[in-house]
Amino acid sequence: MDIDLNADLGEGFGPWRMGEDEALLEVVSSANIACGFHAGDPVIMNRTVRTAGSKGVDIGAHVGFPDLMGFGRRQMQIDTAELATYVTYQLGALAGMARSAGHRVTHMSFHGALGNMAAADAALAEPLVRAVADFDPDLIISSSASRAIEGAAERCGLRVATTFLADRACDDDGLLVPRKLPDSVIHDPEAVLARVRQLLEDGTVTTYGGKRIPMKARSILVHGDTPGAVALARAVRGVVESAGRVVPISRQLALNP
Amino acid sequence: MDIDLNADLGEGFGPWRMGEDEALLEVVSSANIACGFHAGDPVIMNRTVRTAGSKGVDIGAHVGFPDLMGFGRRQMQIDTAELATYVTYQLGALAGMARSAGHRVTHMSFHGALGNMAAADAALAEPLVRAVADFDPDLIISSSASRAIEGAAERCGLRVATTFLADRACDDDGLLVPRKLPDSVIHDPEAVLARVRQLLEDGTVTTYGGKRIPMKARSILVHGDTPGAVALARAVRGVVESAGRVVPISRQLALNP
Amino acid sequence: MDIDLNADLGEGFGPWRMGEDEALLEVVSSANIACGFHAGDPVIMNRTVRTAGSKGVDIGAHVGFPDLMGFGRRQMQIDTAELATYVTYQLGALAGMARSAGHRVTHMSFHGALGNMAAADAALAEPLVRAVADFDPDLIISSSASRAIEGAAERCGLRVATTFLADRACDDDGLLVPRKLPDSVIHDPEAVLARVRQLLEDGTVTTYGGKRIPMKARSILVHGDTPGAVALARAVRGVVESAGRVVPISRQLALNP
Amino acid sequence: MDIDLNADLGEGFGPWRMGEDEALLEVVSSANIACGFHAGDPVIMNRTVRTAGSKGVDIGAHVGFPDLMGFGRRQMQIDTAELATYVTYQLGALAGMARSAGHRVTHMSFHGALGNMAAADAALAEPLVRAVADFDPDLIISSSASRAIEGAAERCGLRVATTFLADRACDDDGLLVPRKLPDSVIHDPEAVLARVRQLLEDGTVTTYGGKRIPMKARSILVHGDTPGAVALARAVRGVVESAGRVVPISRQLALNP
Repeated sequence: MDIDLNADLGEGFGPWRMGEDEALLEVVSSANIACGFHAGDPVIMNRTVRTAGSKGVDIGAHVGFPDLMGFGRRQMQIDTAELATYVTYQLGALAGMARSAGHRVTHMSFHGALGNMAAADAALAEPLVRAVADFDPDLIISSSASRAIEGAAERCGLRVATTFLADRACDDDGLLVPRKLPDSVIHDPEAVLARVRQLLEDGTVTTYGGKRIPMKARSILVHGDTPGAVALARAVRGVVESAGRVVPISRQLALNP
Repeated sequence: MDIDLNADLGEGFGPWRMGEDEALLEVVSSANIACGFHAGDPVIMNRTVRTAGSKGVDIGAHVGFPDLMGFGRRQMQIDTAELATYVTYQLGALAGMARSAGHRVTHMSFHGALGNMAAADAALAEPLVRAVADFDPDLIISSSASRAIEGAAERCGLRVATTFLADRACDDDGLLVPRKLPDSVIHDPEAVLARVRQLLEDGTVTTYGGKRIPMKARSILVHGDTPGAVALARAVRGVVESAGRVVPISRQLALNP
Repeated sequence: MDIDLNADLGEGFGPWRMGEDEALLEVVSSANIACGFHAGDPVIMNRTVRTAGSKGVDIGAHVGFPDLMGFGRRQMQIDTAELATYVTYQLGALAGMARSAGHRVTHMSFHGALGNMAAADAALAEPLVRAVADFDPDLIISSSASRAIEGAAERCGLRVATTFLADRACDDDGLLVPRKLPDSVIHDPEAVLARVRQLLEDGTVTTYGGKRIPMKARSILVHGDTPGAVALARAVRGVVESAGRVVPISRQLALNP
Repeated sequence: MDIDLNADLGEGFGPWRMGEDEALLEVVSSANIACGFHAGDPVIMNRTVRTAGSKGVDIGAHVGFPDLMGFGRRQMQIDTAELATYVTYQLGALAGMARSAGHRVTHMSFHGALGNMAAADAALAEPLVRAVADFDPDLIISSSASRAIEGAAERCGLRVATTFLADRACDDDGLLVPRKLPDSVIHDPEAVLARVRQLLEDGTVTTYGGKRIPMKARSILVHGDTPGAVALARAVRGVVESAGRVVPISRQLALNP
């Protein structure tokens, strides 16, 4: 079994850092790199792209709302056609950074509130996914389970790599439960690892409501921004390696296999 | 004689507009489009790129300091390696917008204080021009006369299209005289047109100090952000057309002629 | 009959201008001045405060979402306790500008999407109005008709000056109809003037649905950002002066009469 | 001997933190709080103001360039009259936050590149200090030794509390040596403590060039943003307490003693 290990990286801004990028880049096989709207700046993007590229880690664009102060975690009601241009802008900025470094962007994902909104709303997902396809039809969409995203991607001819968020509860549709609900974020490392094992062995996830639903994930998201997060990420990698191989999404979904 | 007519466009932000982009896009053959740092946002960039592309106007990236409040006209002392990543970011963002619209970026220029600083300082010009070459070696640098820019471009293998700023006084080295000096901006339309005629007929410009120096320009910059500017731009075009042809810089400097 | 004439001013940013502030400051008796979040910057705030103060025009803080690109017209889901600190920040910034100029802030209003959300949601209005009272209990809240704002202001001991938006349709509760609905913005100058006359003579407004409801307004909002807006503002002033007097809200609601 | 212990606090932004504010607020007697231009946001300002106020720590405004990405450490060439309005804006914002919390701002200091530029340039210091005086003539200016600042403050009728930066080398005029010079920042804790002792016992500091110059400091700046910084701050406090008392600048320079 091939699984990608994925993390949100480059989430600092100016003088500020978030998470242990260096350590995580030794663990993961793909990175979602912030593009300057909810986090990230050119210096950080450049450094993260180059380090990821030099380690063979897939480079992805992590696209968010233009809200540094809220870290892209606050819903904004933006005209969808305008929002689509924000997606293009961020994709272009990261692709330029990768190109200058001799690398390429292989995938993208929607960050925070934008990701949650798009995952739950087909009318929003459609123009945003279309913007991705218009920019580069070879990009893979990395997303937690979402029929809205998957449907839009299919219509736009884009590949989707479903990502399992091991430490976030989901509902019976596979959608992430809002952060503000109790126990929506799973802090117990053993519980997180148990969820990873269940995914790998059984192809299922147990939902917030206690139901067991199928989950066809190609990728598992780990974090680096809380104490113990890197250790947990390493433990997740250990679980994956005992069940199969860590393989970047771009190689799982190669255009020319 | 072939000359490009060039303008700085897409210089609005959010709800604010600057200049008469629509009218100017009927006059010019190349556009320098702001990329979101000193002006411009994704919506405006997208609109300007598409309109320019649909009219056959060359699409260029107008790269500036990250200073919306100062419109990129204030000097900032930024580490040159960091500044180089700002250049890459802006180039990528505009190139992404062009790519999504089915167009391509043909050239770039440095805006405002960044442009003045780079034009006068070889140690700054070098890494910035290198960033352009690393991003896309086919990009043409559009610049007012500057040995610093020209030298760096030559070392990086980039083509330069020298732009004549018809309404800005220059010194005996061809460098723009600072805006705050009296008469550094030439407001009299007849004086501007006379300078254009002298350039076209004689290949020279008369400097701030009264000296006549040679000026090998491939492009003339016109403006759209002051009363009467569009009328003056049209008059400049008339002068050019009576002396030769208006030809975009990308066609003057075609890679595969 | 005493009525205030009110306008949103200082809505430029950096090099960009919006509306004809100079002309409007000759027409109105109170100004809502943007504080740098949705529009406005220190230079513009300073200039607007000084000009308003020198003409005896009431100085008010126009408080909005931190969204320059969207001009504060896009809803943002922000934690209310955090949003309350954004209100305080903006009030302080404008009050500082007024204080340095020898003037004082007399009132405040919520701009754009923030205004619409607060006017329609008591749970949001309460902490925001509380933030105003905590900052300065003498400030008057200028608001279109809203039971949410009025209730919160009463509980916080603040005075409210209801403002009539002559060119915006309202529903049967007096709340503004969303901008995206057809005819929500009334463009016909004669229709606007007729609505002003009806307010002054009859104390009513005809709603979007055609109902005539009472409207106890102390202020009428005029605009300066569209062609013909200043002429219309002057015409509104003419109507008011033929029915009564133009009196700033701070004098209508004087603390020590 | 009475000495103030001073720190730069509230230097996070949005989701990002810098330094150990909570720990430092147990050590210092005065705080310079970032106002949203180079760091700080309303939520962080509010929290820092309230914690400082509740502990009897002096609340000061830390005023910087509008450059979050560069943390206010990069020189910007801004028209001095415009820059003066940036000072007023930041002072007002923090004063509003303090006022809403039932506290008051007692002092201010210029941050980073703005501080260095103002300290070295009387023509810049004058309008900036004037802006402080225009806002509130009771504010104390906290500054490293600078004849430019001191002269301007004297002309504006403002009190100055000279601050000794124990871990930063200064030149023979007492001005801070640029950060990029080797050994401009003193990392050895013992060397820092020795400098504090020399100041307290001898009233002098040894300059970058090795000269011993007099230094009449009322305050010592400590940091919280590097490993070991809080421990060092506590050690500095220990040295001060063995030589005299830790007293906030507002009490050392009380208006009504």
